[in-house]
Amino acid sequence: MNIRLTLRILGALLLFLAAALLLPVPFSLYFGDGAVLPLLSSALVTAVAGFALYLNFQSEKEMSLREGFAIVTFGWLAFAIFGSLPFLFSGAIPNPIDAVFETMSGFTTTGSTILQKIEGLPESILLWRALTHWLGGMGIIVLSLAILPMLGVGGMQLFKAEVPGPTADRLKPRIRDTAKLLWVVYVLLTLLETLLLMVGGMNFYEGLCHAFATLATGGFSTRDASVGSFQSAYIDGVITLFMFLAGVNFSLHYHALRGRVQEFWKSEEFRWYLYISLGSILLLIIWNAGSVYDSFWQNLRYSSFQAVSILTTTGFGTADYEVWPVFGQYLLVFLMFIGGCAGSTGGGMKVARILLLFKHAHLQIFRLIHPRAIRQAKIGNTPVDRDVMQSILGFFALFMGVFVVASFLMAASGLDLVSAGGAVIATLSNIGPGVGSVGPADNYAHVAPFGKIVLTFCMLMGRLELFTVMVLVFPSFWRK
Amino acid sequence: MNIRLTLRILGALLLFLAAALLLPVPFSLYFGDGAVLPLLSSALVTAVAGFALYLNFQSEKEMSLREGFAIVTFGWLAFAIFGSLPFLFSGAIPNPIDAVFETMSGFTTTGSTILQKIEGLPESILLWRALTHWLGGMGIIVLSLAILPMLGVGGMQLFKAEVPGPTADRLKPRIRDTAKLLWVVYVLLTLLETLLLMVGGMNFYEGLCHAFATLATGGFSTRDASVGSFQSAYIDGVITLFMFLAGVNFSLHYHALRGRVQEFWKSEEFRWYLYISLGSILLLIIWNAGSVYDSFWQNLRYSSFQAVSILTTTGFGTADYEVWPVFGQYLLVFLMFIGGCAGSTGGGMKVARILLLFKHAHLQIFRLIHPRAIRQAKIGNTPVDRDVMQSILGFFALFMGVFVVASFLMAASGLDLVSAGGAVIATLSNIGPGVGSVGPADNYAHVAPFGKIVLTFCMLMGRLELFTVMVLVFPSFWRK
Repeated sequence: MNIRLTLRILGALLLFLAAALLLPVPFSLYFGDGAVLPLLSSALVTAVAGFALYLNFQSEKEMSLREGFAIVTFGWLAFAIFGSLPFLFSGAIPNPIDAVFETMSGFTTTGSTILQKIEGLPESILLWRALTHWLGGMGIIVLSLAILPMLGVGGMQLFKAEVPGPTADRLKPRIRDTAKLLWVVYVLLTLLETLLLMVGGMNFYEGLCHAFATLATGGFSTRDASVGSFQSAYIDGVITLFMFLAGVNFSLHYHALRGRVQEFWKSEEFRWYLYISLGSILLLIIWNAGSVYDSFWQNLRYSSFQAVSILTTTGFGTADYEVWPVFGQYLLVFLMFIGGCAGSTGGGMKVARILLLFKHAHLQIFRLIHPRAIRQAKIGNTPVDRDVMQSILGFFALFMGVFVVASFLMAASGLDLVSAGGAVIATLSNIGPGVGSVGPADNYAHVAPFGKIVLTFCMLMGRLELFTVMVLVFPSFWRK
Repeated sequence: MNIRLTLRILGALLLFLAAALLLPVPFSLYFGDGAVLPLLSSALVTAVAGFALYLNFQSEKEMSLREGFAIVTFGWLAFAIFGSLPFLFSGAIPNPIDAVFETMSGFTTTGSTILQKIEGLPESILLWRALTHWLGGMGIIVLSLAILPMLGVGGMQLFKAEVPGPTADRLKPRIRDTAKLLWVVYVLLTLLETLLLMVGGMNFYEGLCHAFATLATGGFSTRDASVGSFQSAYIDGVITLFMFLAGVNFSLHYHALRGRVQEFWKSEEFRWYLYISLGSILLLIIWNAGSVYDSFWQNLRYSSFQAVSILTTTGFGTADYEVWPVFGQYLLVFLMFIGGCAGSTGGGMKVARILLLFKHAHLQIFRLIHPRAIRQAKIGNTPVDRDVMQSILGFFALFMGVFVVASFLMAASGLDLVSAGGAVIATLSNIGPGVGSVGPADNYAHVAPFGKIVLTFCMLMGRLELFTVMVLVFPSFWRK
């Protein structure tokens, strides 16, 4: 491990964060919400820390895989800590544990909140809150499509392979070019959604905040009652559509922008993502018919919004699904584990991994009947390398292991059985609201400090595909 | 598939069942419980069906792997159907779905009951109920140590490999010899426990029934309040010990009987099984101290009984763990997934599989740090073959998949979220009592008929290590 190089790059990242902290300032001036000073001082503290690291540590060596792991994990952690300063300095969230929880929830595009009252907080602070989603989402796209495949994490090579995206010969320019092109897509979709939301009656500030939270599959809203507060079928529809788009591999959007729309359908993961979405919506409509919603259109509107919101791990709410029939709740919990497509801003285990788990299990049964047959699981037309499959299976075991251990800890922190598991899957899959006492009509304020720390780490681990964080625990990682 | 040969062997198995149905007759005569006629007519019907199959179908061909799968699955199914006749004929369980549920629960050594009132039923019928456990357990020992490894199911080859047990050169004599030796162990332990329970004040009939249910890790009791009804610390202790022994690979007992007691400690699976047991007991004692039990001895007695009862998937009860602190309940649910050792009568995923999942996940993280290192997961000193590991990983994915789908169906049948999942894991892991409305203080009587059928299949699939049942669903299995 080259610690000097790692610290230097972390310093550079903090300088970037300091610049980002200035973005809400014009909004603060416009609204006169009194948060200019907290924002400026947050930027200053972050910039000083960034400079201190950047200037004090130098290294001639090239970056290796190990530094990659350390920078990703500690970068996200540093963003959650320094990004929480506006909440602390403005008094919006006076408790540091709460503030870091909220910021981690932002940067990991989770959307779990400890705020009991959102409306009434300074607009610029809420914009910053939404912006943490958007910046986090930006980071995740590059992470999942360029950095993690390179690091070999949890079979991410494969998802890169299925949708090759823009490539180049050498490594560094490739990451930079890939990043640029994907961010263009990301920015365009964000602007388009903002515009469409403004057509629906939102002002620019609210439109932007919700577009930030949608494209990042985050879920922070500026309203206490989330998207439901706007009571507009049009807004619900627009957000449902963009949540769905945000859960798609961004390489596909890139191809579509260049006119190759057929790439969507060519992707096996996309097809299954679409089937799961439509299937879930259909099932929810059937179960909610009559018992919850009298009109078909109401039913369609609320059922599709919740299904897509949970599957894509956004976590926006327009209805309290905990009052729906049990079967529907169960479906949503199931969707929580699946999540969006690899290479999207969505969390969870990812559709492609679930798909390959099924294919693997199927293949094992097939082998019992045909012991001498040689067959390999495929995704699309690409046969899955054995090592990649091993990695995906390891990811699944690890995901379940972390889920169990963290749920234990949450039960120890005082939550009941359902809420403990619900809080863990909601954070580990980067969704936001869970079930039980952390359901869509509740928030995370009542969770004990110890529990909040556990959930903060769940968000981080889930976002960084577990492995990225886990390697740091190995002593051999730190040896030269 | 050689259907003729399969049917012939099923006929032979039914003839064996018919003979077993006569065993409770002397008890019926002794107690004068009026169940002689139901038992004799059940035996007659079964014998006629057995002869019809045995004599009508003949085949010169040798048995192949495919017939093995079919015989195991359909054999268990046939036993559950014909074994339910005494319940139906005696009127103890008038509903056929309930009767098959109860019998499947017996033969799969699950112990879930639909009986709301056990005391007062004919003694011989309750003995038959306990006997289904014992016969099922007998079948499982041979199945898991001789037949499934041969069929290559879910990595069972490995568990056979770690504890080689008595082997011979050719296939048929090996199965027969292995079976004989293991059954000697099984019978000896059963007699020993019966004796010890009689010392504690049970009569021969009750001692035998509880020994049957313990050694098979079944859990059917002759009392409404299960083992708790005897209110004896001595009986609790004896049953705790024998439940623990029943959860151990029976090959180890065989070695111990021949003086090689050190084999216990040499087995890595056994060591982990011991650690998990002791660790769980310790944690339960800590959490239950003060809040549930005032005296340390009370605490030790009830905590160790419940931990071992659930881990070994027996399901006997002496306390309602649903009134324990949430943390303790969570631990028990976790233990439900683990289960006993491979080659024992215990269900669940098995300690060895869980152990290998962890080792696999660990190895995946290790590979990220040392991409060029060549390492293989080991159990004991045996490196795990890649194909075997693939099979174990496939088993895990399948187990979770079945758990999810079945829980869905249970939620659809009208159970709440916790009870739906609780009922499925309690049957899929062959435990007995679950959580929620099917907890230790409740029973399965209130579950809808559709739900009972789903759970009946869960018991079968869990008991036969999933794969054995799953292959039958493949059309290519049935092709010549």
